Amino acid sequence: MALIVQKFGGSSVGSIEKIKNVANRVIEYQKRGDQVVVVLSAMAGQTDHLIGLAQEITPLPDPRELDVLMATGEQVSVALFCITLKSMGYDSCSLLGFQIPIYTDNIYGKARIYDIDTSRIKQELEKGRIVAVAGFQGLDEAGNITTLGRGGSDTTAVALAAALDADLCEIFTDVDGIYTTDPNICPEARKLERISYEEMLELASLGAKVLEIRSVEFAMKYNVPLHVRSTFTEERGTMVVAETKDMEKVIVSGVAYSKNDARITIKKVPDRPGIAAKLFHPLFRAGIVVDMIVQNTSEDGMTDLTFTVPKPDFLRTMELIRDVAQEIGAEKVLGDKDIAKVSIVGVGMRTHAGVAQRMFEALANENINIMMISTSEIKISCVIEEKYTELAVRVLHKAFGLDKDGS
Amino acid sequence: MALIVQKFGGSSVGSIEKIKNVANRVIEYQKRGDQVVVVLSAMAGQTDHLIGLAQEITPLPDPRELDVLMATGEQVSVALFCITLKSMGYDSCSLLGFQIPIYTDNIYGKARIYDIDTSRIKQELEKGRIVAVAGFQGLDEAGNITTLGRGGSDTTAVALAAALDADLCEIFTDVDGIYTTDPNICPEARKLERISYEEMLELASLGAKVLEIRSVEFAMKYNVPLHVRSTFTEERGTMVVAETKDMEKVIVSGVAYSKNDARITIKKVPDRPGIAAKLFHPLFRAGIVVDMIVQNTSEDGMTDLTFTVPKPDFLRTMELIRDVAQEIGAEKVLGDKDIAKVSIVGVGMRTHAGVAQRMFEALANENINIMMISTSEIKISCVIEEKYTELAVRVLHKAFGLDKDGS
Repeated sequence: MALIVQKFGGSSVGSIEKIKNVANRVIEYQKRGDQVVVVLSAMAGQTDHLIGLAQEITPLPDPRELDVLMATGEQVSVALFCITLKSMGYDSCSLLGFQIPIYTDNIYGKARIYDIDTSRIKQELEKGRIVAVAGFQGLDEAGNITTLGRGGSDTTAVALAAALDADLCEIFTDVDGIYTTDPNICPEARKLERISYEEMLELASLGAKVLEIRSVEFAMKYNVPLHVRSTFTEERGTMVVAETKDMEKVIVSGVAYSKNDARITIKKVPDRPGIAAKLFHPLFRAGIVVDMIVQNTSEDGMTDLTFTVPKPDFLRTMELIRDVAQEIGAEKVLGDKDIAKVSIVGVGMRTHAGVAQRMFEALANENINIMMISTSEIKISCVIEEKYTELAVRVLHKAFGLDKDGS
Repeated sequence: MALIVQKFGGSSVGSIEKIKNVANRVIEYQKRGDQVVVVLSAMAGQTDHLIGLAQEITPLPDPRELDVLMATGEQVSVALFCITLKSMGYDSCSLLGFQIPIYTDNIYGKARIYDIDTSRIKQELEKGRIVAVAGFQGLDEAGNITTLGRGGSDTTAVALAAALDADLCEIFTDVDGIYTTDPNICPEARKLERISYEEMLELASLGAKVLEIRSVEFAMKYNVPLHVRSTFTEERGTMVVAETKDMEKVIVSGVAYSKNDARITIKKVPDRPGIAAKLFHPLFRAGIVVDMIVQNTSEDGMTDLTFTVPKPDFLRTMELIRDVAQEIGAEKVLGDKDIAKVSIVGVGMRTHAGVAQRMFEALANENINIMMISTSEIKISCVIEEKYTELAVRVLHKAFGLDKDGS
């Protein structure tokens, strides 16, 4: 007998028919003797519908009340799911964030879980019930409803698995696992059998959309084995687990890309201590997150400074930076939205030399110019012209042998 | 400065535009210095939509989970309402059943409130906030979500007004008050300035749909003055208050009717002690509520027994009664769905003689046959053929001078 936490996303519970399908899957586990805690997202489209209602009132809805609104989506899912299970003769019980409770801080819209009381869930499991937990929601210390942000149900599932010391956390989604890259732009992409938490974290940060970053952090921190798999097939998906020795044999596990950034260059910034701090201060105050930053070598006491921000923040950033650039006597500010970031990720980089070289050469062979480079221990990212994104991904996928079965 | 509880029904919050209208009304009260607690129903159509989802799964959804589902309707309303208020610059706070809490028993779908903790509401009011409470929902002792049944938001409002010792409870609805009878079938119907709790209770029981019965019981028990009025006009509506001496001057305050009952007659029942108990036992076990019961004088040790049940229970009742009638040796069972109940209500009946006589004569003058009669201290109900309903209402309305302004 195992204790398993299963998470089903919005597309898996998008209709009554699909909810029945999920119920059937869950029942199989119970039949073979497992205890099952199911975490559900809102039905596909529901979250957007609710946001739409709020936006009809104001572009900036009050965060506390927005969370009260949004939390209804998952509440509907778990209620319908338990109605389904009970109508099929299986005892079950829905639990909302406040009923468990799942305690979070009070940052509405992106609250962080800090504690989960598992006693109620355990009680229900001991009664032989399938427990359905509303994902994405929690309760702050003052008794207010909070939500964890988009993709928060993944985090709910992993946090529950950690708190319950579950044997496995299965993330059911509409893709059948983690791929070496996006199969939509690279038909040679292969499903990985397993991947380390660190690599998954990098891939998620760099544009892969399968898992929410925080859920991977949680899984890594508490060593919760994750199984990412499809709701619609019986096939095994990808295990996300702690790194093992043999994983370093594979140099690159995946290629990620993102078109969500824009690049801003400030020409001829006086190269004085404190200038960077001064430049970025208005962005920090506006809540704009700067990703990559590159500063050229100084020449005549002047330097060029380039950085990237999320595309939706581009115009606002340009405004803010133009003001401060003038103030500090920089020459001019240039902006470019037509960029993309392609990245290779792999724990094998730690022990293999020449990986960056191979990446640069592969891009150069296709005449793809590299605008910015950023590296960590297990990834290398290059900013390139947006139009080359798909080509770059395919070239890198091939250059690192990801099209050949190596796992 | 007064403390006022206001309840707005589903049609009053049926769209974002209407929610804004409600917000404007509430703000007026705050501006003049009142403390306001607003109780909201689910947006019009939402409750039916949610029931529809559950019914798509099974005709008999699990009651606990159905309440979890239904409670989302009011949650959406209060969240959108507070988003609206805050976007207009007015501080507010939504509170759900569990956050107050409003404690109920655990009869899912028709829970009864037994306690309300007012401390959180008072805290929020003291901060100068408009408090929006989700109607219709509560929490049982084990922490499960319960709902109070259709129209439960009225009860939430009145119970809150009682618990908070509010100065007034205003029920905003899509009609502008309590009428002497249904204006749709009697154009002479007049809006009452005030009516006693007892009369309102009878009218609500007898078919008037403006207020939910339990909310009137609550108001009477705790002496909460109710103001029933329209969401869409500024006009005064009807005050529902404790009876005062002068109210008895008016003999009849209103005429009610209902087409929701069916009549069943058992011919030639052996007139022995215990027979009635035996006959009604299967109905009691099936949860069918018997309304009027009439038993004729016995003749040759045999009697005819006639009673009414809600129309939806008619077929089931016929089945059950046929079985038991055969068992006890009754002659036969007759059923009739084409009946209606017309009633006159007024605290003045207590002190005025000949009221019943006047009612019977008025109906007789129009050749309307009376099939059954039932009376209480302040009402007389007659069962008649359904096709005469509208005529009977108009005739009685006139016979008791309700078309003339007497209030």
